[in-house]
Amino acid sequence: MLETINSPEDLKKLSLDQVRDLAGQIRDLLIRTVAVTGGHLASNLGVVELTLALHRVFDSPRDKIIFDVGHQCYVHKLVTGRSGALGTLRQYGGLSGFPKRAESQHDCFETGHSSTSISAALGMALARDGNGDDYEVIAVIGDGSMTGGMAFEALNHAGHLGTKLIVVLNDNSMSISKNVGGLARHLGKLRTSPTYHRFKGDVEAALLRVPRIGPGLARWTRRIKDSVKHVFVPGTLFEALGFTYLGPIDGHDQALLEQVFAWARRLGGPVLVHVATRKGRGYQPAEENPDVFHGISPFDPETGTPLISEQTPTYSEVFGQAMVELAATHRHLVAITAAMTDGTGLLEFARRYPDRLYDVGIAEQHAVTLAAGLASAGIRPVVAVYATFLQRGYDQVLHDVCLQNLPVVFALDRAGLVGGDGATHHGLYDFAYLRHLPNITIMAPRDEQSLRQMLATALGLAGPVAVRYPRGRGPGAPLGPLETIEPGTGEVLRPGRHVSLIAIGTMVAHALGAADLLRARGIQAEVIDARFVKPLDARLITTSARRTGRVITIEEHVVPGGFGSAVAELLSDRGLLSSGVRLARLGIPDEVVEHGSNQSYFERFGLTPEGIARVAWDLMDRGGTSGETAAGQVLGE
Amino acid sequence: MLETINSPEDLKKLSLDQVRDLAGQIRDLLIRTVAVTGGHLASNLGVVELTLALHRVFDSPRDKIIFDVGHQCYVHKLVTGRSGALGTLRQYGGLSGFPKRAESQHDCFETGHSSTSISAALGMALARDGNGDDYEVIAVIGDGSMTGGMAFEALNHAGHLGTKLIVVLNDNSMSISKNVGGLARHLGKLRTSPTYHRFKGDVEAALLRVPRIGPGLARWTRRIKDSVKHVFVPGTLFEALGFTYLGPIDGHDQALLEQVFAWARRLGGPVLVHVATRKGRGYQPAEENPDVFHGISPFDPETGTPLISEQTPTYSEVFGQAMVELAATHRHLVAITAAMTDGTGLLEFARRYPDRLYDVGIAEQHAVTLAAGLASAGIRPVVAVYATFLQRGYDQVLHDVCLQNLPVVFALDRAGLVGGDGATHHGLYDFAYLRHLPNITIMAPRDEQSLRQMLATALGLAGPVAVRYPRGRGPGAPLGPLETIEPGTGEVLRPGRHVSLIAIGTMVAHALGAADLLRARGIQAEVIDARFVKPLDARLITTSARRTGRVITIEEHVVPGGFGSAVAELLSDRGLLSSGVRLARLGIPDEVVEHGSNQSYFERFGLTPEGIARVAWDLMDRGGTSGETAAGQVLGE
Repeated sequence: MLETINSPEDLKKLSLDQVRDLAGQIRDLLIRTVAVTGGHLASNLGVVELTLALHRVFDSPRDKIIFDVGHQCYVHKLVTGRSGALGTLRQYGGLSGFPKRAESQHDCFETGHSSTSISAALGMALARDGNGDDYEVIAVIGDGSMTGGMAFEALNHAGHLGTKLIVVLNDNSMSISKNVGGLARHLGKLRTSPTYHRFKGDVEAALLRVPRIGPGLARWTRRIKDSVKHVFVPGTLFEALGFTYLGPIDGHDQALLEQVFAWARRLGGPVLVHVATRKGRGYQPAEENPDVFHGISPFDPETGTPLISEQTPTYSEVFGQAMVELAATHRHLVAITAAMTDGTGLLEFARRYPDRLYDVGIAEQHAVTLAAGLASAGIRPVVAVYATFLQRGYDQVLHDVCLQNLPVVFALDRAGLVGGDGATHHGLYDFAYLRHLPNITIMAPRDEQSLRQMLATALGLAGPVAVRYPRGRGPGAPLGPLETIEPGTGEVLRPGRHVSLIAIGTMVAHALGAADLLRARGIQAEVIDARFVKPLDARLITTSARRTGRVITIEEHVVPGGFGSAVAELLSDRGLLSSGVRLARLGIPDEVVEHGSNQSYFERFGLTPEGIARVAWDLMDRGGTSGETAAGQVLGE
Repeated sequence: MLETINSPEDLKKLSLDQVRDLAGQIRDLLIRTVAVTGGHLASNLGVVELTLALHRVFDSPRDKIIFDVGHQCYVHKLVTGRSGALGTLRQYGGLSGFPKRAESQHDCFETGHSSTSISAALGMALARDGNGDDYEVIAVIGDGSMTGGMAFEALNHAGHLGTKLIVVLNDNSMSISKNVGGLARHLGKLRTSPTYHRFKGDVEAALLRVPRIGPGLARWTRRIKDSVKHVFVPGTLFEALGFTYLGPIDGHDQALLEQVFAWARRLGGPVLVHVATRKGRGYQPAEENPDVFHGISPFDPETGTPLISEQTPTYSEVFGQAMVELAATHRHLVAITAAMTDGTGLLEFARRYPDRLYDVGIAEQHAVTLAAGLASAGIRPVVAVYATFLQRGYDQVLHDVCLQNLPVVFALDRAGLVGGDGATHHGLYDFAYLRHLPNITIMAPRDEQSLRQMLATALGLAGPVAVRYPRGRGPGAPLGPLETIEPGTGEVLRPGRHVSLIAIGTMVAHALGAADLLRARGIQAEVIDARFVKPLDARLITTSARRTGRVITIEEHVVPGGFGSAVAELLSDRGLLSSGVRLARLGIPDEVVEHGSNQSYFERFGLTPEGIARVAWDLMDRGGTSGETAAGQVLGE
């Protein structure tokens, strides 16, 4: 049946029974497709009925539906003309795993990070009012995203303004991990609250006050009331903020969802519909392990078993293992995560040291300042967070940690390109948003053992530290002891005299590959692992630059303001550039980078060994390959 | 009496009557001092009794008191041994206007930006629990700060953990402007709610369950109940999140405050004490105009009249005036402020276009994404925000505005040094946190008319734009028409052939001053107003660099990652540096900059005309003053 659905209009022609059949077909397709492409499965299985109901009750693209965090938009994509392309999901040039305005007029706002949808929806609602339009705006937000502070800011503002706006709270009692917080307890209480018929009271009275609807709707509401089997409880927190609260309702009851959405559509002012869903609904492996099936790599759809057979641990696992070891010797060490205990590799740490792990919910701002508070009182917190999500705590890193020079360690997972998740999730900005902050030390490991050493080193420092490492698996370096390295020092991995390849993190391996290629052409490249972005190893870098006269920096990070920018500043300040040293900075260009394999982007941006070697070759061409450079001569080397 | 108070211990020896007398003396001193030094007056007048009560009930520094935003800490400073230094308030080398750990052991955590205190307090409380200590941790937070999302994140987490923690909600129904939002309405409802005796019910039962206190306290509570004249209402929002709610109580009733704080101290778990205060209390001009007396320049203490007689408008006023004019011709223009309608100069705009101004409360994250939502639906929002506060919305600028290339204009007021407010408020990082973002245009005006042109230009662009301008008054340039300038172009203000002074914003005037000094020594400096930090005027800058061979960049911004860094990247990428062009980058060094006049810091950091001329002179010395440079020759100029 899915093939016949090319737009939401087609959905509206179906009977309820047909829609229920369609829901089953969609689940099958989702499971079969994501088993091949990887992606976000459990959350999409949870919103099948919810999404179908929205598209049957509302009129997208005229009405605007905004999916918070966006990874639960697959069903939405299927019914808005993109079912044929689902097989290209998250691949270079294929369908994005998140809403994309360039993809469809039904994707009205792009999301990826948590808790943005109500703000965006309120903006659209105000634009509608200002322009004299009358379309509906709906934000679909999970209970996990609701713990992010900006969702509260938006609720507070929307409740104040009283503008028409519908917030659908998709409550699966999960963030990505099990949800935490006073809010979660509040929602749980609402879900299990005794029957409470609100219709007779405030809400009906409110309906009567809505001028454009009036008494007719109130009668309609009474009719609805009779047909709505589920009952409504007072949602004190949302009502306190000025919202009309409807719910909770069963998020897998197609008829009920449609009835309540239709009701919400006719209400005035800000309305919150509380929908209880089950993550992974309809696929037993996902229902049983919703966190495993949150974002998943290819798996066997029959059993739910991952297909991946690689044996080297992920960086997250290496980090988690190091944390377990470090906790044994550092008795003041604690870990903080923002709803990412599993994703950041802290499951074993949580098992071993449950009292030393704080999961704060999706609340990076609070995570950072909580760490500052802990550090100010003698504890050594390690904030484990994806590089892209620490963006949410930038002000707190500066204001609460760096200005006070507090010893907080930021373990930045998923730094660099992240593949299928794409633009909103790449960790391409962390060097740039951190390196101008006072007091901070910034490191990036080239392999697993280097990560272990940097974590041990970070805990020995008296101020803020960030260690950034990539998504996925490393080269498989043997794990050695947790010994420290000298702060602010790089490492010469291969001496050479023609060109300096100064790389950081993942790009060190590519630089070594480039050096091999260059050697075959008679060029001796010096390969340096910078290790520290701040402070830079000024002595090592300037010495190498003087010797070779040609420097290439390589980083998996945007070029403006990044590691190469720091090296440019150094070489300029020391007068090396004006003495003739040539510098080329390689990295991610200043543009929006979409989804696709990291390798596809490395090739596109010349960050492969071949690409690096080519740039080195060009630099050689311009300067000749033999003897000392002018720079070296000028500087008396 | 104040001279006899050297520590909180001395406070405890006073009778209630003596404390009330002391409160009067403190108010007198605050008014007399701030009339001379300038500073935050109204908020401090509002918390006199509250602060005295805290220090009489709790034991600082053993117990930790954290003042959210911190500008209301003057009373705290007076009673913790710093009354003699109050006359040096906010001056270079003098007492900070905010908590400073280096100043006193009673300042346990530094604050400045809003909404951080509960997170920090929870961190300390967890550290206390982890270390087996038993001190109290108290966060004092205003109702305005409570609208910031991270306060909600912290409440949510604290309510979940159940750790002992006291939040004092200082509710004066103001942010800096009149407070807005659903929360404000909720608090107002609580303040005016009918009598509700809670003691008999839940709370007393809860007290009986607290093991270390037990039945004895319940008896004590009943006694307190009789003496507490005020009554308590259920604080649904806070209770929904897991807090025990006490209040609201009269924040100027010394005895009541002390009784309730003592009670809160004995309760277990997270407690919120709702205290109603009056901003400006005890000083009529401040009670009548609390926003004017929020942060104020020197004034006549008898009348409250400002002493300033300067006639040129502030940049904020120029901005506000331009907005009024632009609104007339740009019908889709709206303004957004985060509780800073007055501070950002939008009062007249608010009067003229009340429907086109959105005050979102202290909620910068929401402000940015609200703007993105508006822009996605055809409105042209201008977000007026201090440069330091947009740090709070960094992720949203990147994720919601820049990745989607939406036409949102950020008007960054208070960019650069801000004088007396110091470290937490300097706008020294905006170029660095913005210029690596895709699609953004960044400008900084050198004078008032230049600001007008840049705002007009910004509204003509199709993507995100930031315009940053300083605190206070400009040079008094005549205000001309609102004409646009060519995007990405700088301007040669004075041609020259020996050295290029490439400045941005405020530093353009200093560069012109330096050129005058240099001319007297026979050096012809070319002075360029870069105007755009992104995109740089590559042609203009490289042409000048080739001609003079010596470039000095000057900015009121930190050096790492800033404007000079962008120029270094450009000159390096174009091969100019390695062809011999010398580059010196002047700006704020990579350190924490405290409070004090901007001039004192310009002198310290060599950002005066004399300082700039000295650097130019040094560059000349190294390269000779006559003829073309090696770079020019190499490049065939």
